[in-house]
Amino acid sequence: MIVVLKPGLTKDEIQKVVERIESFGLKAHISEGTERTIIGAIGDERILLDQTLESFPGVERVLPILKPYKLVSREFQRFDTIIEVNGHKIGGKKVHVMAGPCSVESRDQVLETAIPVREAGATFLRGGAFKPRTSPYSFQGLGEEGLGYLAHAREVTGLPIITEVLDPRDVELVSGYTDILQIGARNMQNFKLLTEVGKTNKPVMLKRGISATIQEFLLSAEYIAAEGNRKIILCERGIRTYETETRNTLDLSAVPVLKQLTHLPVFVDPSHGTGRWDLVVPMALAGVAAGADGLLIEVHPRPEVALSDGPQSLKPEKFAALMVTLKKIAEAIGREI
Amino acid sequence: MIVVLKPGLTKDEIQKVVERIESFGLKAHISEGTERTIIGAIGDERILLDQTLESFPGVERVLPILKPYKLVSREFQRFDTIIEVNGHKIGGKKVHVMAGPCSVESRDQVLETAIPVREAGATFLRGGAFKPRTSPYSFQGLGEEGLGYLAHAREVTGLPIITEVLDPRDVELVSGYTDILQIGARNMQNFKLLTEVGKTNKPVMLKRGISATIQEFLLSAEYIAAEGNRKIILCERGIRTYETETRNTLDLSAVPVLKQLTHLPVFVDPSHGTGRWDLVVPMALAGVAAGADGLLIEVHPRPEVALSDGPQSLKPEKFAALMVTLKKIAEAIGREI
Amino acid sequence: MIVVLKPGLTKDEIQKVVERIESFGLKAHISEGTERTIIGAIGDERILLDQTLESFPGVERVLPILKPYKLVSREFQRFDTIIEVNGHKIGGKKVHVMAGPCSVESRDQVLETAIPVREAGATFLRGGAFKPRTSPYSFQGLGEEGLGYLAHAREVTGLPIITEVLDPRDVELVSGYTDILQIGARNMQNFKLLTEVGKTNKPVMLKRGISATIQEFLLSAEYIAAEGNRKIILCERGIRTYETETRNTLDLSAVPVLKQLTHLPVFVDPSHGTGRWDLVVPMALAGVAAGADGLLIEVHPRPEVALSDGPQSLKPEKFAALMVTLKKIAEAIGREI
Amino acid sequence: MIVVLKPGLTKDEIQKVVERIESFGLKAHISEGTERTIIGAIGDERILLDQTLESFPGVERVLPILKPYKLVSREFQRFDTIIEVNGHKIGGKKVHVMAGPCSVESRDQVLETAIPVREAGATFLRGGAFKPRTSPYSFQGLGEEGLGYLAHAREVTGLPIITEVLDPRDVELVSGYTDILQIGARNMQNFKLLTEVGKTNKPVMLKRGISATIQEFLLSAEYIAAEGNRKIILCERGIRTYETETRNTLDLSAVPVLKQLTHLPVFVDPSHGTGRWDLVVPMALAGVAAGADGLLIEVHPRPEVALSDGPQSLKPEKFAALMVTLKKIAEAIGREI
Repeated sequence: MIVVLKPGLTKDEIQKVVERIESFGLKAHISEGTERTIIGAIGDERILLDQTLESFPGVERVLPILKPYKLVSREFQRFDTIIEVNGHKIGGKKVHVMAGPCSVESRDQVLETAIPVREAGATFLRGGAFKPRTSPYSFQGLGEEGLGYLAHAREVTGLPIITEVLDPRDVELVSGYTDILQIGARNMQNFKLLTEVGKTNKPVMLKRGISATIQEFLLSAEYIAAEGNRKIILCERGIRTYETETRNTLDLSAVPVLKQLTHLPVFVDPSHGTGRWDLVVPMALAGVAAGADGLLIEVHPRPEVALSDGPQSLKPEKFAALMVTLKKIAEAIGREI
Repeated sequence: MIVVLKPGLTKDEIQKVVERIESFGLKAHISEGTERTIIGAIGDERILLDQTLESFPGVERVLPILKPYKLVSREFQRFDTIIEVNGHKIGGKKVHVMAGPCSVESRDQVLETAIPVREAGATFLRGGAFKPRTSPYSFQGLGEEGLGYLAHAREVTGLPIITEVLDPRDVELVSGYTDILQIGARNMQNFKLLTEVGKTNKPVMLKRGISATIQEFLLSAEYIAAEGNRKIILCERGIRTYETETRNTLDLSAVPVLKQLTHLPVFVDPSHGTGRWDLVVPMALAGVAAGADGLLIEVHPRPEVALSDGPQSLKPEKFAALMVTLKKIAEAIGREI
Repeated sequence: MIVVLKPGLTKDEIQKVVERIESFGLKAHISEGTERTIIGAIGDERILLDQTLESFPGVERVLPILKPYKLVSREFQRFDTIIEVNGHKIGGKKVHVMAGPCSVESRDQVLETAIPVREAGATFLRGGAFKPRTSPYSFQGLGEEGLGYLAHAREVTGLPIITEVLDPRDVELVSGYTDILQIGARNMQNFKLLTEVGKTNKPVMLKRGISATIQEFLLSAEYIAAEGNRKIILCERGIRTYETETRNTLDLSAVPVLKQLTHLPVFVDPSHGTGRWDLVVPMALAGVAAGADGLLIEVHPRPEVALSDGPQSLKPEKFAALMVTLKKIAEAIGREI
Repeated sequence: MIVVLKPGLTKDEIQKVVERIESFGLKAHISEGTERTIIGAIGDERILLDQTLESFPGVERVLPILKPYKLVSREFQRFDTIIEVNGHKIGGKKVHVMAGPCSVESRDQVLETAIPVREAGATFLRGGAFKPRTSPYSFQGLGEEGLGYLAHAREVTGLPIITEVLDPRDVELVSGYTDILQIGARNMQNFKLLTEVGKTNKPVMLKRGISATIQEFLLSAEYIAAEGNRKIILCERGIRTYETETRNTLDLSAVPVLKQLTHLPVFVDPSHGTGRWDLVVPMALAGVAAGADGLLIEVHPRPEVALSDGPQSLKPEKFAALMVTLKKIAEAIGREI
């Protein structure tokens, strides 16, 4: 950590900053420049994370050198994390596509989606039973009933399932049904929920908050890892910008950035990332080309009557056509689907 | 709701859209333009909120006419909501200042802050016992012990208290101590938590999420109101933009916009809104000038050793000086502090 | 255009709005809803573009139905525009890669870049002679001398050139050397410059402003088209968001959105879009997968001593390797490079 | 400037970075930490502004210590710049209000605005003769004819005038009429135009670009100052964010931030900053409370038929009422209007 001092401090004032830094067990290393004096704080700067040093008298700015997360960082673990779920390896050469409806609406609707997506090559079934909705008057999901329909579809198709958990009190219940726990974008900084899923040993798909920096995203993953659960998949699903043509702006550069900073698998959700089914195909292709380890795609047999997110859902036929091109893109970069 | 059709539809295709609209109990009113045909859907368009109409064949766009929130809207209740807390009226002529430390650190630290802020004119004591922190390695608050210190300071000073609740499982516990429940920015869309505080009859201070639109903010307030709790205070505390000189960009225009759209009191938090104590004073003044019903300000006896948010905390002397000018600003616009 | 009226207007007040709309030669079509009355303004609503209707008494909101641009819209021209430059067709099946240094620094540096990029498959040479720099103390480009070096490299390699023009007074000069005129992101709304290049018959590459909406982007293209020059190429090069890991956030969803809204060719610039050479490769691949008609890539023989944008420039060897994978991606989606 | 090295470099590799830094005439000061080695580059780091060091082998990151602008910085000149225009001092105790129509439409319209705003206490008349418009089909201003109407209004009312210049070729013409040259937000990085106005000795009002950082804003002011013209007024007028309730988000915290970083006067434009006349009054009050040296306000005798920006223009009566409250706010903070 670099502490930049205000110009014109006396020796005594500088000494007080040095003492403050050393009171945390760090070594202070002074370097006098022509316009500023700076102090390097040597040791594990994460101790200084809370950065109250910035309000210490004489301090102009504090510049961190190290990343504030540890367990999830590429420096902590050089090799890629590979997560095994029911025999599928996530994070390796194979790109996984998880597909299914936004909301679970009925036993039939789930099956009508699960069967064709498996045939088209999807390896996981997605579907929401607990739905976080912007309005209290919108459909909030079928709850445990919906979890049952997902489990039934897994029995029929063999596809492992992924579904969202919203409430720390529901983690046990949802874990009893699902193969992967999903934490949605709105809950990326629901630290109580992160802690709770960190205590399970279920794989967790953590979606990026719509205005989360990549650093905040990785710190949220660190919350889960710090509780002992290292089976974390990250998912880029669009960030909020001024542009209104799309529901969010899918930040695909986050994929290679994350692959550098962390050893965890990185997925892309082009459905939420764009909010428009007609953009899902090009952005799914682009996501794999950018290096994603997998995709999360909304498919619905009748999007025009879906209880949520109809405008961003593909019909099974479009999804099947997408999978054909996706395979070619994966091969072009030396991977497979 | 206005449904804009794609150009070149046949009569039959238009008829299908009409039938779909009417299947929700709305009346469809067709209007043929030179380049587009549009259909007005007449009735309570909130039924169509989930907007799957956008994926209906032949539909180009759907434009809502009404606001999606109801109970919290100015149309639903013309007059200002006034919330009484221990004899203080929030939302009337008087501007309230709630001051105190970011984190409760000790019994003494709370008292050392509470006494001078009361003398300077603050009417509520703020302080966090449960802290949402970006990093799992940062100080997470004293929990129930901290709530006890706040209650003790209330006994000594007579100041009612406001403190944050993070977890739906803690709502009852925190309600047992506090006078106002605070929902932080990161939890603005933690719908389970909103529902839980909506079931209490404690006043709730709801902070705007750092990337929440004003509409989403009001829909989150609607979640609380829909459960029966109408004692809601809104708080603007800065939004995320590209600018890095400040921690967030304090969106003061949200104050007059909210005062038009809702009958609820609107506060401003210049401490989180800027992240820098040297900007708190001008932005506090500006907040009241813009029409805020109150302020939330971080004050710490020794910001340079605070366990959180030191850089944005005022010392008690600075706070006292601010209160003197604030009173003049309030008078200039016909209010009082 | 839909005019939403405030609730509770008298017949007379409504009549005045109707008269105002009809004073522009449009027909007004009233539709009474349960909570709002709306008026459809039928005819060419572009007349109302300046939208002063919003300040007319009794008007709550004005919702446009049509796009405000015309000549560049897909509705105006269904088929793709194909632009011929020295025998190359831009906007067709072939994906074009334009490569070269950010700044022209010397005759040798241009040649040292031009020769290997042509060998690797680039079809155009890019390079800046007039450089818009954030700081007045940064290198501002070689000016006409640099244009000469580019022309010399064209002679040697046969690659047509593209270079930026900054000043309306230089349009004639730059046109004398270049094959394509580039308008940079900072000048996307320099309307005097747009008008000036619109009067030439040189193809123009228009880059999206860093905070331009897609609608504003197309309106800037319309400025050029309205002067008579329809040979316009659009280029997405990253927008400004809160994320700081990348210099800008490359908005690849803009590619399919633009391909729907306009008939003009759409390029992607992954070098400026990310600001980091290590992200150029994945984002170039993703750009083509998303449907871009071409790429603009910075290549420099020695990025570590470049006079501008070194951190985002590829070395010729990396560029050559990228081209190999790009060809496979293009084939995967039925195109070629 | 701090150069952070990648972990695990050999002595030789470190030595090469040191040599590169010293090749610019700076001294390199090595500091070995537990996880990273850093090098302090001592001397005038502005030499390294172009930051190609980031692409030098072995370099992980480069952290600037000093601000990249100089002449406009508070470190260069401690005391406030006061600009005299026709006997008015801008930047001192008095807060100036510049008012008038967005576009000059006719001789009468200008006078009808100028007379009442002078009576209400405005000290300058604003009005646009050259208008930068998003659409080529919108009213583009009266040009020189409009400048004449402004000059005529100055003769009648004695109010000095401020008007925008768009084109480097028009700087001389506009300077012949106006008392202050205005550079609009869209031209904040039109460096050719900045250079041209920097060569005059007219005061320049420079508006912040809608997505300009404060650092970029000050670098644009530095462009003008570097040409010799130090009579620069800065103007915050709203930045682009995701929020759609307002046209832009007025960033009032920019006012105290700028007052710290620069000695130049800082104005606020609540009309463009919000885009809605009903928000102009609260945001004008807030702007002065935040410490602005002046305001720029759009006033139009008949906003409902204005040729541009009607929705954000005040009527003269509303403006007069605003001035009464503004005076009280100015007094509350020890200033005057």
